[in-house]
Amino acid sequence: MDIKAVLHVLGALLVSIGASLLIPIGVCLIYNDGGLHAFIISFLIIVTVGLLLWLKTPADREVQVREGFAIVTFGWIALAGFGALPFVLASSGISYTDAFFETMSGFTTTGATILSDVEALPHGLLFWRSFTHWLGGMGIILLSLAILPMLGVGGMQLFKAEVPGPSVDKLKPRIQTTAKILWGVYLFFSVAETVLLRLGGMNLFDALCHTFGTMATGGFSTKNAGISHFDSAYIEYVISIFMVLAGANFALHYRALRGQLSSYHRNAEFRFYVGIIVAVTLFLTFSLRSSHFDSYSQSLQKSVFHVVSLMTTTGFHSADYEMWSISAQFLLIMLMFVGGCAGSTGGGIKVVRIFIAIKYSATQLKKLVHPHAVIPLRLGQTSVAREAASGVMDFLLIYFFIFAAGSFAMTLFGLDLVTSVSTVISTLGNIGPGIGTIGPTENFAHIPAAGKWLLSLLMLVGRLEIFTVLVIFSRHFWIK
Amino acid sequence: MDIKAVLHVLGALLVSIGASLLIPIGVCLIYNDGGLHAFIISFLIIVTVGLLLWLKTPADREVQVREGFAIVTFGWIALAGFGALPFVLASSGISYTDAFFETMSGFTTTGATILSDVEALPHGLLFWRSFTHWLGGMGIILLSLAILPMLGVGGMQLFKAEVPGPSVDKLKPRIQTTAKILWGVYLFFSVAETVLLRLGGMNLFDALCHTFGTMATGGFSTKNAGISHFDSAYIEYVISIFMVLAGANFALHYRALRGQLSSYHRNAEFRFYVGIIVAVTLFLTFSLRSSHFDSYSQSLQKSVFHVVSLMTTTGFHSADYEMWSISAQFLLIMLMFVGGCAGSTGGGIKVVRIFIAIKYSATQLKKLVHPHAVIPLRLGQTSVAREAASGVMDFLLIYFFIFAAGSFAMTLFGLDLVTSVSTVISTLGNIGPGIGTIGPTENFAHIPAAGKWLLSLLMLVGRLEIFTVLVIFSRHFWIK
Repeated sequence: MDIKAVLHVLGALLVSIGASLLIPIGVCLIYNDGGLHAFIISFLIIVTVGLLLWLKTPADREVQVREGFAIVTFGWIALAGFGALPFVLASSGISYTDAFFETMSGFTTTGATILSDVEALPHGLLFWRSFTHWLGGMGIILLSLAILPMLGVGGMQLFKAEVPGPSVDKLKPRIQTTAKILWGVYLFFSVAETVLLRLGGMNLFDALCHTFGTMATGGFSTKNAGISHFDSAYIEYVISIFMVLAGANFALHYRALRGQLSSYHRNAEFRFYVGIIVAVTLFLTFSLRSSHFDSYSQSLQKSVFHVVSLMTTTGFHSADYEMWSISAQFLLIMLMFVGGCAGSTGGGIKVVRIFIAIKYSATQLKKLVHPHAVIPLRLGQTSVAREAASGVMDFLLIYFFIFAAGSFAMTLFGLDLVTSVSTVISTLGNIGPGIGTIGPTENFAHIPAAGKWLLSLLMLVGRLEIFTVLVIFSRHFWIK
Repeated sequence: MDIKAVLHVLGALLVSIGASLLIPIGVCLIYNDGGLHAFIISFLIIVTVGLLLWLKTPADREVQVREGFAIVTFGWIALAGFGALPFVLASSGISYTDAFFETMSGFTTTGATILSDVEALPHGLLFWRSFTHWLGGMGIILLSLAILPMLGVGGMQLFKAEVPGPSVDKLKPRIQTTAKILWGVYLFFSVAETVLLRLGGMNLFDALCHTFGTMATGGFSTKNAGISHFDSAYIEYVISIFMVLAGANFALHYRALRGQLSSYHRNAEFRFYVGIIVAVTLFLTFSLRSSHFDSYSQSLQKSVFHVVSLMTTTGFHSADYEMWSISAQFLLIMLMFVGGCAGSTGGGIKVVRIFIAIKYSATQLKKLVHPHAVIPLRLGQTSVAREAASGVMDFLLIYFFIFAAGSFAMTLFGLDLVTSVSTVISTLGNIGPGIGTIGPTENFAHIPAAGKWLLSLLMLVGRLEIFTVLVIFSRHFWIK
């Protein structure tokens, strides 16, 4: 393990994140409602630490796979650890534990919050909170389409070929090219959503913050009542559409924007993703119509919004779905497990893994009846290598182990059964709200401090596709 | 599909099960408290149908794998369908739906009941109810150690070598030899437990019925209060010990009884099985001591009893564990998923599959760090073939799919979330009681009829290691 090379990159990361504080500093200057001083101190600390790390370590060392894992994992921890500073320094009564939880929730695009009254925060802090989503989303797109496929994590090698850019073996040039392309798409959609939300009557500040929450599938809102604050079907549908886009593979968007609109249709994962959204939305629309809503149009609006919000792991809410039928809630919980597409900013298990798992099970059933038949496993037009399929199975297995172990740990904090399980689904899947005492109208403030640290870790583990973090705990990782 | 050959075997099965009704008929004559007439009519119907099937179909046709699946699945359905007759005919006010549920629960050794007052039943019916457990247990041992390994179901090919008896390829002679050996062990333990329970002060009737419930890991009791009725630490420990034995591989017992006591120690699954029981028991004993019990000895007694009862999927109870801490309940639920060892009468996923899955995940993590290393997957001293390991993964995957789909279906019947999920864990794992409104002090009577049919199907699916039933639904199965 070349620790100095890792620290060098982390230093550069901190300098960039420190520099990004200049934007909330600008927001503080505009609104002048507090927090300026906290941001300036944070800026100085973060940039200083970053520069020291960067300058005191040798530059231009070639980074290997092992260092790649370390940079990603410790990078996210450093982001949350230092990004929490403005919350603590703004003397808003937020403890470091809570600030770390909130910032980890931001950078992992989870959207779980410890704040019961977000509207009381100064605009600068509110902006920073949503901005961590947007920055985290940029990191995730890069991670899932450029870095993890090369590290061969959890079946992600499937997407090696999906990524645009030159096929060079060295990590750096490839990542840089890919980053520029994908971030272009991300920026394009972000501008489009902001404009559309402005047209719906949101002010620029709210439009920006909600765009950050949407495109990163994060879910932090600037309003206590979430999206229902705006009471606008137009706004809910705009956000729904952009959540669907954010939960889809950005490599597809890139191709579509270059004119190959058929990319969407030809992609098996995307078809399955849309299929699930449509099927569950229809079920909810019809089953909730008579019991919960006055009209089909209202039932459709609320159903599509929450199906998309929870499946893409965004976590925005515009209704209290805990009041809906048990079967509706159960389906929403299942969607939380599924999550977004690979190469999106969405969390969860990922649509493609569920798709492959289902296909795989089907082929195994066929094999029982025809033991000697060779039944290929296909994902659309391409056949899936045995290696990738078994990578998917490992991922599912370890996901459920962590889910079970995490849920058990949460029961030790005196939470009820549903909440214990739900906090883990919600953080491991990077969703935000759940059910039980962390429903859409509640928050995570009442979880004991140790529980908040554990949930922060689960957000990280879920966000980095599990293996990236787990290998760090492996003895083999540290032995050269 | 050679349907006539299947019907021939089913005919023979019905004749045997009809003949077994002579025992409850004897019980009716002894106690003379009702039900005699119901059993005589049932006897006549079942034996007649059986004989007709048997005589009208050609004998001595060689049965293939495909027919094997059909015989097992339809055999269990026929047992439940016809075995339910005495309950309906005894004019005890039990509907056919309820009688089918109760009998399926008996033959699948589940132990879920629709009866709120079992003590009101005549002795003949009570005996039959428990006897279905014991007969089902015989079937399961044979199925899991002699039939499924040959059909290569869900990683069960692992146990091909485990089974004593000659290695002949034709199903019939091999099954017959294996059956005699294993049923000898089963009978031996049953006699031993009955004697020990008699020594603890139980009358012969209760001792026999509870032995049936124990050795089959069933869980039907003849008392409304379950095992707590007897209020005896001796009886709870005797039952605990025999539940542990019933939840272990019967091929191991056979070797141990022939003098190779070290078979237990050398078996990796058995060590893991005992390890889990000890670990969870210790956790519960210490964590429940101060909050729920007066002494460590009482805490230990209740902890070990319920850990063993739920892990082996027996489902006996001597305390209301729904009053215990949430973490205790969560662990008990996890144990319900794990289940007994392969080749036992226990249900659930099976210890060996969990063991292999954990080992497999560990090797995959190592591979991430050392991509080119060849890391063998070992189960004790033997190495696990890739085929068997992937069979295990398929099983886990399909188990969770069925669990999720079943739970969703149960939410449609208006049950609360915990109960919906718990009914499925409990029936799919062949346990009996669960949590929610089907806890140890409650029963399944309040579930709507359609729900009872679904849960009956899940008992069957779980009991027959899923694939055995699933292939019947496969189009490929019926096309020659």
